[in-house]
Amino acid sequence: MPEFRRDPITGAWVIFSPERAGRPGSFVKNPPEQGLMPDCPFCPGHEKNTPVEIMHFPGSLEYPGRPWALRVIDDNQPLLTSTHGIHRYGEGMYDLMSGFGFHELVVESPIHTDGYLTYLESHIRNILLAYQSRFAELGRQEGIQQILITRNTGRAGGPYHIHPHSHIVALPIVPKRIFEECLGCLKYYKFKERCLYCDIIHQETVDRSRLVLENEEFVAFCAYAGRFPYEVVITPKAHWSRFEHIRPNEIALLAQMLKSVLTAVKRHLESPPLSFIFHTAPTPQAQQEELSCVTKYYHWHIEIIPKLTRTAGFEWGSGFYINPVLPEVAARALRESCKSTAAV
Amino acid sequence: MPEFRRDPITGAWVIFSPERAGRPGSFVKNPPEQGLMPDCPFCPGHEKNTPVEIMHFPGSLEYPGRPWALRVIDDNQPLLTSTHGIHRYGEGMYDLMSGFGFHELVVESPIHTDGYLTYLESHIRNILLAYQSRFAELGRQEGIQQILITRNTGRAGGPYHIHPHSHIVALPIVPKRIFEECLGCLKYYKFKERCLYCDIIHQETVDRSRLVLENEEFVAFCAYAGRFPYEVVITPKAHWSRFEHIRPNEIALLAQMLKSVLTAVKRHLESPPLSFIFHTAPTPQAQQEELSCVTKYYHWHIEIIPKLTRTAGFEWGSGFYINPVLPEVAARALRESCKSTAAV
Repeated sequence: MPEFRRDPITGAWVIFSPERAGRPGSFVKNPPEQGLMPDCPFCPGHEKNTPVEIMHFPGSLEYPGRPWALRVIDDNQPLLTSTHGIHRYGEGMYDLMSGFGFHELVVESPIHTDGYLTYLESHIRNILLAYQSRFAELGRQEGIQQILITRNTGRAGGPYHIHPHSHIVALPIVPKRIFEECLGCLKYYKFKERCLYCDIIHQETVDRSRLVLENEEFVAFCAYAGRFPYEVVITPKAHWSRFEHIRPNEIALLAQMLKSVLTAVKRHLESPPLSFIFHTAPTPQAQQEELSCVTKYYHWHIEIIPKLTRTAGFEWGSGFYINPVLPEVAARALRESCKSTAAV
Repeated sequence: MPEFRRDPITGAWVIFSPERAGRPGSFVKNPPEQGLMPDCPFCPGHEKNTPVEIMHFPGSLEYPGRPWALRVIDDNQPLLTSTHGIHRYGEGMYDLMSGFGFHELVVESPIHTDGYLTYLESHIRNILLAYQSRFAELGRQEGIQQILITRNTGRAGGPYHIHPHSHIVALPIVPKRIFEECLGCLKYYKFKERCLYCDIIHQETVDRSRLVLENEEFVAFCAYAGRFPYEVVITPKAHWSRFEHIRPNEIALLAQMLKSVLTAVKRHLESPPLSFIFHTAPTPQAQQEELSCVTKYYHWHIEIIPKLTRTAGFEWGSGFYINPVLPEVAARALRESCKSTAAV
């Protein structure tokens, strides 16, 4: 059974998930096979090999002739399960919590080799709508404080099945990095009475040197002090703290931007493995005092991280990152890549 | 020129080091060559190809017939330089600091293929003495708030030259993770009036389930909530906040323990790439109020991290780690590996 343990020094929670140790690809010395899985459980016709389906979108429009366009299912080797409830213990001086939570997969397409470069924009809207729908449902589950969506592509990002899919993980805690972002934004809010991200967006759209792309509702830029080369942030221009409150017209514009930016990154960097993750405000069930007014000062965003560098001991040990590419250089290259892609 | 930039959200500083972008191995898609470098600048006879030598130990005892046993030199592509001093600027709302600091290399042996498995214990003492000597010198440089020592082995750890060497980096800031450790220890100290690490060491030596090895002065254990599988912490049993205050008899016992633990890890996990990093208290020049009594509540330690898992977007994005191996399981395996190694 999975469990959460709290680092007594930094206060960070770590998931221990021994069931996953045997998964191919979980250790670097057993790299997963390239190419197709012999019996992909996510391809149409193999629906019985996956855990219970939570929802699906019909294939009629974007994938005519296919039984479905997108499925949401439980992960068959979930990081966390909801069966045993939330229990907190002490182990001597240490803190332990049962591995409560939800772990769902979005099988994004019926086509095994599909992906953001080949998806229709209207289909990316479907994916975002599925996320939104699951957020609403999972956020209502008792004890859920944070919902994370992550999408990995390519080997270094760590996907096991190559069939395009993303993860939705609902947690009974607020992960360290999200909490740190909240605290940073709160500190700024107390000082300036303004949202930190709103100020960043203002500076980036005026300065333009780190800007990658913008449309009426969204902006994509390389963060001033991004930890990784070619890291891109996509965020709404208006102050919204929760992704799940996104409106239909905004979903269309976000789908457009995601496709453009991911295509630009993949073209410029020759299809690197990459990950992206949605950072949205903790749910109203989050218990920390500092989060009581989180919607005022937190601003949701997506972090896109190409996996170009190895993280060495220095970064892991010190929490101190070395980035060999200035964000202005990265942004210029990605702006040009966006333009040339649009021209194709 | 390198520069530090501060993440306005989390407050973490990131080094931008564009000069290093072109280094082989800096991007995953250009992996470095395996095996020997055609012209290793660190091998004896090539001393002229390295930057100025800071110190060396004679070869007489451990490496008879060799011109030296160990050299400390400046890094020829330093992360940071001391030439331009410390300057802090604002860039609009952002914070920038010149890339001030020191970056030295310890060439640990005259033998290209040497390493912790082949070093004599007396030579590991030499390496630790070199670290101690450089700590004393660098800690006195104006503006230096933290000194980090890291050692990477194997490809995934990110070394460029395979000739055994370690890095000493002296920084004008306290890295995020060290600062977080300090804050965690301070909070505990305020609550309990005891050192958190001293309490952890007490619990681990009584409980023994996560213990890997102990001697009169040091203990090695797998941390209760370690982020990575087979992560090992080595720390003095007595309350010492600074590695640099280590005494000669303790150096001998630390050398012994480092050799045993690294050998056990390498044997059990079939020589994985790994990194280790020294976590020692920030220097007295560190400016944060919270660090004013750091020697009371901080406890120095070494973190050894085998590189077994890929860090996927989930961890990078959320700061939330998934560890597939319970520390009790890892510690038992490493204890057995220590015993069988000792028996050889």
